[in-house]
Amino acid sequence: MNSFNKILIQKSIKSNSKLCVGLDIDSSRLPDNFDKTINGLKSFLYSVIDCTTDICLAYKINLAFYERYGSSGYKLMEDIVDYIGDKNITIADGKRGDIGNTTSKYAKSLFNQIGFDSVTVSPYMGRDSIEPFIDDPLKGAFILCLTSNKSASDIQFIEHDGKTIYENIATLVKELNCNKNLGLVVGATQKERMISVREASGDMPWLIPGIGAQGGDLESSVKISCSNSSIGVINVSRGILYYGNCSEDDIREATKSYNNKINLINVN
Amino acid sequence: MNSFNKILIQKSIKSNSKLCVGLDIDSSRLPDNFDKTINGLKSFLYSVIDCTTDICLAYKINLAFYERYGSSGYKLMEDIVDYIGDKNITIADGKRGDIGNTTSKYAKSLFNQIGFDSVTVSPYMGRDSIEPFIDDPLKGAFILCLTSNKSASDIQFIEHDGKTIYENIATLVKELNCNKNLGLVVGATQKERMISVREASGDMPWLIPGIGAQGGDLESSVKISCSNSSIGVINVSRGILYYGNCSEDDIREATKSYNNKINLINVN
Repeated sequence: MNSFNKILIQKSIKSNSKLCVGLDIDSSRLPDNFDKTINGLKSFLYSVIDCTTDICLAYKINLAFYERYGSSGYKLMEDIVDYIGDKNITIADGKRGDIGNTTSKYAKSLFNQIGFDSVTVSPYMGRDSIEPFIDDPLKGAFILCLTSNKSASDIQFIEHDGKTIYENIATLVKELNCNKNLGLVVGATQKERMISVREASGDMPWLIPGIGAQGGDLESSVKISCSNSSIGVINVSRGILYYGNCSEDDIREATKSYNNKINLINVN
Repeated sequence: MNSFNKILIQKSIKSNSKLCVGLDIDSSRLPDNFDKTINGLKSFLYSVIDCTTDICLAYKINLAFYERYGSSGYKLMEDIVDYIGDKNITIADGKRGDIGNTTSKYAKSLFNQIGFDSVTVSPYMGRDSIEPFIDDPLKGAFILCLTSNKSASDIQFIEHDGKTIYENIATLVKELNCNKNLGLVVGATQKERMISVREASGDMPWLIPGIGAQGGDLESSVKISCSNSSIGVINVSRGILYYGNCSEDDIREATKSYNNKINLINVN
């Protein structure tokens, strides 16, 4: 049976890339001479996709950066996902999570209405908030496990019987992974803790934010997350989108550079 | 200094209501003869607001039910919030939560772009995912604490040093409540556990889902959550929106009935 996790690895081999470009559009970070209307942002994002599609594995769209512009931003997001098409894996980074009845509406919205290949999910409400994303084996979900931000410690590091909350999440998600379409979000800033998550998560894929602006450790992230049967998808947002003067040449150069750095890291 | 929590109590006294009508629009639940296009749903929601605005405190808009229709649904949500205006408290039930940089975009989106008075927030990533919602004291945030669904137990019931995760959240949110604009989401289905949350949460307001379709305990919810200085906002969605044949008369009757039931419960 085909599955999202299998497709992810196949596409990674085919593109020779584990890199995900985060399309966190933010007009205040673009050079002054750029058109900062919604149409201008769309042209910029189309050009980013044009100059990176053949050298990256995936695109992550953080929904907050689009919702910030209201329904016009939401429409922009739909256009971007359409424009990417089947060439790369698309990830809706919305960290949704609700009771089952509501989560099934989020699954319809993100998978069927907009056409994303995968989503990120916040697990505070437990398995109800994950299950509706599992039904279609060709669509994937990355569950927040060990996040890259400082206050991850407020909840995630709490221990019971020698097991942290994030280790509990890894175990729960592995148990739910019957359709081979679940993975984890594991922040690159938590090097020491990543090893125990890999042990608890088997060969589930990871989505790894925190490289670049957040100062995560690229080498450890790749070494711990990747093997013959598993993959860590390395996300870089600001470090690519706003590199140099944001020209196609600069963005392609930054993408190639991250891709090469990742591919040079020796994986067992 | 004025604050969201103060305004919430003032509006509750003025409207003689603690009731929140959940505008979870779902075309498949409407009678066959209803117009189920986006425009039809808008007319229906406008008529629901027309016939309930003077007898309820608040409206909760669960974003999943609008995003399910893509950017047209997002636009519908904007129109609904505009239509409600200042007459009632509006709650964006999106359970957002991300790193600070991203959460500030969600705050801009929900508070400034769309104009909601308050939001719900998922705390898995810790205080980073709450802080950007605190800055404006006139805007409020209800943080997921003890939720109404069965699998709340997966994370929320885990204990460390005799304190559950949801009690930790209550303590954390109370600590962050310097602008008096934070509250908690506490499900009505967890009667036994509500008491310890009230102890940990001081006089912060609660948003209480789970009454009606989910089978929560209305009497306990009101008694435990309400006092002279605190309020439990009781949300009812399906039990009002799809009552009888969904006519204005039926919806007004259901709203009045819930309002009366709540107001008859004796609060110390």
